Amino acid sequence: MTFTPAVKTILDKYESDNPGVKANLARILTHGRLGGTGKLIILPVDQGFEHGPARSFSVNPDAYDPHYHYQLAVDAGLSAFAAPLGMIEAGAGTFAGQIPTILKVYSSNSWATSINQAVTGTVEDALRLGCAAIGFTIYPGADDVFDMMEEISEMSAEAKAVGIPTVIWSYPRGGTLSKAGELALDVGAYAAHMAALLGAHIIKVKLPSGHIEQKDAQKAYEGGDWSTQGLRVKHVVQSCFAGRRIVVFSGGASKETDAVFQDARDIRDGGGNGSIIGRNTFQRSRGDALAMLDKLVRIYKGEE
Amino acid sequence: MTFTPAVKTILDKYESDNPGVKANLARILTHGRLGGTGKLIILPVDQGFEHGPARSFSVNPDAYDPHYHYQLAVDAGLSAFAAPLGMIEAGAGTFAGQIPTILKVYSSNSWATSINQAVTGTVEDALRLGCAAIGFTIYPGADDVFDMMEEISEMSAEAKAVGIPTVIWSYPRGGTLSKAGELALDVGAYAAHMAALLGAHIIKVKLPSGHIEQKDAQKAYEGGDWSTQGLRVKHVVQSCFAGRRIVVFSGGASKETDAVFQDARDIRDGGGNGSIIGRNTFQRSRGDALAMLDKLVRIYKGEE
Amino acid sequence: MTFTPAVKTILDKYESDNPGVKANLARILTHGRLGGTGKLIILPVDQGFEHGPARSFSVNPDAYDPHYHYQLAVDAGLSAFAAPLGMIEAGAGTFAGQIPTILKVYSSNSWATSINQAVTGTVEDALRLGCAAIGFTIYPGADDVFDMMEEISEMSAEAKAVGIPTVIWSYPRGGTLSKAGELALDVGAYAAHMAALLGAHIIKVKLPSGHIEQKDAQKAYEGGDWSTQGLRVKHVVQSCFAGRRIVVFSGGASKETDAVFQDARDIRDGGGNGSIIGRNTFQRSRGDALAMLDKLVRIYKGEE
Amino acid sequence: MTFTPAVKTILDKYESDNPGVKANLARILTHGRLGGTGKLIILPVDQGFEHGPARSFSVNPDAYDPHYHYQLAVDAGLSAFAAPLGMIEAGAGTFAGQIPTILKVYSSNSWATSINQAVTGTVEDALRLGCAAIGFTIYPGADDVFDMMEEISEMSAEAKAVGIPTVIWSYPRGGTLSKAGELALDVGAYAAHMAALLGAHIIKVKLPSGHIEQKDAQKAYEGGDWSTQGLRVKHVVQSCFAGRRIVVFSGGASKETDAVFQDARDIRDGGGNGSIIGRNTFQRSRGDALAMLDKLVRIYKGEE
Amino acid sequence: MTFTPAVKTILDKYESDNPGVKANLARILTHGRLGGTGKLIILPVDQGFEHGPARSFSVNPDAYDPHYHYQLAVDAGLSAFAAPLGMIEAGAGTFAGQIPTILKVYSSNSWATSINQAVTGTVEDALRLGCAAIGFTIYPGADDVFDMMEEISEMSAEAKAVGIPTVIWSYPRGGTLSKAGELALDVGAYAAHMAALLGAHIIKVKLPSGHIEQKDAQKAYEGGDWSTQGLRVKHVVQSCFAGRRIVVFSGGASKETDAVFQDARDIRDGGGNGSIIGRNTFQRSRGDALAMLDKLVRIYKGEE
Repeated sequence: MTFTPAVKTILDKYESDNPGVKANLARILTHGRLGGTGKLIILPVDQGFEHGPARSFSVNPDAYDPHYHYQLAVDAGLSAFAAPLGMIEAGAGTFAGQIPTILKVYSSNSWATSINQAVTGTVEDALRLGCAAIGFTIYPGADDVFDMMEEISEMSAEAKAVGIPTVIWSYPRGGTLSKAGELALDVGAYAAHMAALLGAHIIKVKLPSGHIEQKDAQKAYEGGDWSTQGLRVKHVVQSCFAGRRIVVFSGGASKETDAVFQDARDIRDGGGNGSIIGRNTFQRSRGDALAMLDKLVRIYKGEE
Repeated sequence: MTFTPAVKTILDKYESDNPGVKANLARILTHGRLGGTGKLIILPVDQGFEHGPARSFSVNPDAYDPHYHYQLAVDAGLSAFAAPLGMIEAGAGTFAGQIPTILKVYSSNSWATSINQAVTGTVEDALRLGCAAIGFTIYPGADDVFDMMEEISEMSAEAKAVGIPTVIWSYPRGGTLSKAGELALDVGAYAAHMAALLGAHIIKVKLPSGHIEQKDAQKAYEGGDWSTQGLRVKHVVQSCFAGRRIVVFSGGASKETDAVFQDARDIRDGGGNGSIIGRNTFQRSRGDALAMLDKLVRIYKGEE
Repeated sequence: MTFTPAVKTILDKYESDNPGVKANLARILTHGRLGGTGKLIILPVDQGFEHGPARSFSVNPDAYDPHYHYQLAVDAGLSAFAAPLGMIEAGAGTFAGQIPTILKVYSSNSWATSINQAVTGTVEDALRLGCAAIGFTIYPGADDVFDMMEEISEMSAEAKAVGIPTVIWSYPRGGTLSKAGELALDVGAYAAHMAALLGAHIIKVKLPSGHIEQKDAQKAYEGGDWSTQGLRVKHVVQSCFAGRRIVVFSGGASKETDAVFQDARDIRDGGGNGSIIGRNTFQRSRGDALAMLDKLVRIYKGEE
Repeated sequence: MTFTPAVKTILDKYESDNPGVKANLARILTHGRLGGTGKLIILPVDQGFEHGPARSFSVNPDAYDPHYHYQLAVDAGLSAFAAPLGMIEAGAGTFAGQIPTILKVYSSNSWATSINQAVTGTVEDALRLGCAAIGFTIYPGADDVFDMMEEISEMSAEAKAVGIPTVIWSYPRGGTLSKAGELALDVGAYAAHMAALLGAHIIKVKLPSGHIEQKDAQKAYEGGDWSTQGLRVKHVVQSCFAGRRIVVFSGGASKETDAVFQDARDIRDGGGNGSIIGRNTFQRSRGDALAMLDKLVRIYKGEE
Repeated sequence: MTFTPAVKTILDKYESDNPGVKANLARILTHGRLGGTGKLIILPVDQGFEHGPARSFSVNPDAYDPHYHYQLAVDAGLSAFAAPLGMIEAGAGTFAGQIPTILKVYSSNSWATSINQAVTGTVEDALRLGCAAIGFTIYPGADDVFDMMEEISEMSAEAKAVGIPTVIWSYPRGGTLSKAGELALDVGAYAAHMAALLGAHIIKVKLPSGHIEQKDAQKAYEGGDWSTQGLRVKHVVQSCFAGRRIVVFSGGASKETDAVFQDARDIRDGGGNGSIIGRNTFQRSRGDALAMLDKLVRIYKGEE
């Protein structure tokens, strides 16, 4: 398989990484229906850990079974499937080689009394399970954020040495950040930039609103046009080393399909690399999810 | 010995595990009178650590002797015996090979000033003592739950590499959970799901009540029929990867035998894999305990 | 990507391997033009180490450049490229993700005064270079064969733990083996079986002649029909756990294309999994090599 | 290259360090247009982590790209470029060997709820990325300063063993220090002295004001002439083992070029070794930044 | 310092190496009077180990002092200085940063009763001494060559991880090789190729004669024009991955300056990267050596 220029251009930007890391990034970038386009759609299923199984799966009970998600990701031609250890293990034998997997090695839950997480997987797990990457979440703004950053730094260094790339979910939360601030443009761009500085290969943030949270940052955003989501995406991508790192955006809570499609068009038009889309897929029927993902793929291909 | 279809079906679901882990699971699933049925009864004796010896054993002083429990588990034809390090060591020579053992490597006690535990055993201990599994407890909801999860994750990874499966006791406790909430259906299902996501091979939770604790989860349970214990067990099993993981239930505090038998019938009918039953056995006379266990075995065999 | 039945059937036979090993085997089995057929063609370029650069490359000087071989393997749609450390390093950055690579971690040379090899690569090298497998050679029959087997056993165990499969080149040589005996049917089958017993995932042997070398084995082969190459291939495959392991055959010294094609048909018809074909490719012009490989691919697809 | 007396004099003062540390100090001291003068200008770009990307780069959007800073440091003939892990990685392949780099292994951010930092890089990172030094920040005065000092001490010891020097940014902050006190002469000299005592090879502090913060220190400063910045610089240099350690000063927030030039003259005249100058460079256009740096180089050379 | 195209072209070929390795290669390629040309001259002083001090230094007794050699390399503007541990240690403090050093970690001596060497230095030594590379010797053809290759492979892997490149001296010797064969063209090209396959960054061989040693290789060389040293150098360079690796040639025993100059012209014209020249420098007076090296530098610059 000769790489498309789109893939080659992206890989060349990971100039300090060994060929093992590059090969795993390439696995994700060349897999599925978006393979070769430089765009990607990742199916993440960690909501059972974060919100509990019933809130996540009761609307579509087939989704209690990990194989359901693996098969959905395969059948929809997605780029990768991300989940915590137990869920990856529950399907890794059957689906080995059918879909790149991202081992989420960091998990929180609804009952946590601090804004923090537990390390629930290792680089060795990722190797034995054949994963193409590991994934962490950090909560910039939280009291414990330095601990989270240190855990990520150590684990990411270990992963890079054995050819495993890292995906950082950067979700501002806690401390002095307001609820609106968690989605603010300045906050999202900053959170993405911190993930890039921590050495992430793929950065995952939420789609930012037009709100500017930090007083000190007001001036920097004055006079800029942040009126459309596409322009805001563009600024986040710019904040990730002027596009030298892959940036994907989450769809957030489940919503109408039209809104999901518009988000994807905005991500595409703003130069983002794609979507991480969980609840909006598995909280629909399989048929509806496949139809929606098919349209998303076509949007990222520029066909819609 | 050719596996029964029931055992084969269960083992096949552990698709990412090495044959060592599978062989140890098979030891438990094929041992004793329930061997081959896919059901199991485990005798756990860690109450001395949790509540002190007199509260645990004075009603049946023979039970101060670890050999008493080993012999009871053997004579009753149970599937496995679970205990902390010292108690396992006190009988492992005599009973080596007579009953699969589960080394509880995590212990709390009545005087604890935080909701946490101590790591009191190792994977090496499990190997040298010939144990078929290691067992931990986590307290989802507690302030220290992330620490517990990290200890389990590390130890479980180590155990898997040397062919030792892990049993997680998942007991919601602390934080914002109410007392009733500790037994709530939504909470129990969530706790079981977290254990599954942590990579447990066998999950042990308490029989859930019909209470729904979490406001955010109310909607997911609305309209469901949770009126019987069997239906609630079924939901917990569903929450463990749609039945891809072995789930056993504890009987809780000692109670009337009829209640114990009804619990077992509900577990069986709800698709659970069996019981972990401690105080209800050794806090009776040996004769009564054997009679009760005989009936439980017959219930799980579908004979009662 | 959903697996074809052919690939799934093969992968299921590696029943003790972790998903990481399976995923790497799947990478090889699903790559290139033979992806999904259960057949594979591997380009090995270690002849420079074994015979020197001029004997290997002077007839086609472009082949002095490692990129030539990588590109040839990519353009011909082969399944994998195998080479020693330096050659893999010389192209792994450019071609990361474009073709599965097999790191040959064991090398001999023409001046060796013993029938042995040097370990010239590590599992860590394979990980950092993104290789899909490691490859060794053993010389059953040689005085030092036990040393070679021990090195392989250790390294292969290390590789399996991190998801890397092993390819063993099993070449009978030395000791009491006659020159004709090195290619004898009984010897080749025995060599292949030893590789299988050493835990190889992919076994590579030479196409056997009809000669029977070992007196003690004469009786076992009496009355069998070994008259065609296809039948002899079938026996070698049978000797690799009745087809539970992938077996590929080498083309040996460069020869006429018709002979190469007939070999491939015999391998295919005898149930072998494919060819490792080095000199016969790069000692032709690129155009001739591509044409020959195209025909080989079609033969393995059953189209010729 | 024979060392100039200026460089030799400096290196001789690092009399307990191994040749690896000296060689890396020499790389910095002999690089760029100030090479050989004993003076140095370092470009630090960690403001994205500390203040967010927009506040740092929006006035000069080219600066979102890490290559911009590398190239600016190269083209201006600076002595070294300092940045956190992700930014170093984003250019280390392209610029390897073109400019000495300092890996900032410690990072804070604007939302931190404590005056502390996260360890975000390792000595191994510095080696694999070819860095000439590692850099930390400490906040003397902060509640967590002992933790920071311990982290630095451990990491610095590890670095020294493999030939990597350490740069300490010593920024008084927190505790009982007043806002004015953070820049006070006595405080700055004390902070610099603590860095020296921690074993730093290069010490980085802010230019001190004439304010004396500590009551207990008033007497010690009485009667001294601290009226000019040059005299205050001289005192800080004196506090770093009477000039046995390299001391560089930061320019602080962006300001008028004339003020920047005057600072440099004062540093030079007070015996300081140079400037760390970040925002004042990249928050100007590239042309203006190069012109300003050109003049700064000439000032340190004594030409202006 | 912006790289010259010559340097950039060379560095880009080391595509699997981390930026640390590239930066150290760049140190050598940009140092001294040949810095930037892509050519290099290395001063090796290991003859005291190989032949004893008197045979090496008595004709120029100043050369007994390691500082003599360091200073000579500095004053002549050479690219690097290579020596065993003790000699590097004897000057590394004084000359740290003045000249890139190559730690020879492998040494033989005149009294050796086998054709082998001792490992006499480590990667840790190279780091603490600030060396830009490590150097080994292998003796292809010798009975113990596999041991040597294994030592090199392990050490080189360790070095690459911490950013240290490796230089392999590949000297055919022993076994069935004739004395004339040690310098034969086919043998030298093969020896160089093996070093490249072992993962060497810089390969050092002797200038080959026109003799062809191996019967099996005769055909490959038939019809080729090997009449000039330049053509033979070209073939060796081709054998090192078609010029993807730096190749330098040794001058052998001391000889007339005109012969030394002609060698350099041939190396240059054949596309070699430079000379390693030991005895021909320090077995002359310092003045004569400097004059000779000055002329060599000018030859490699194309000025003579």
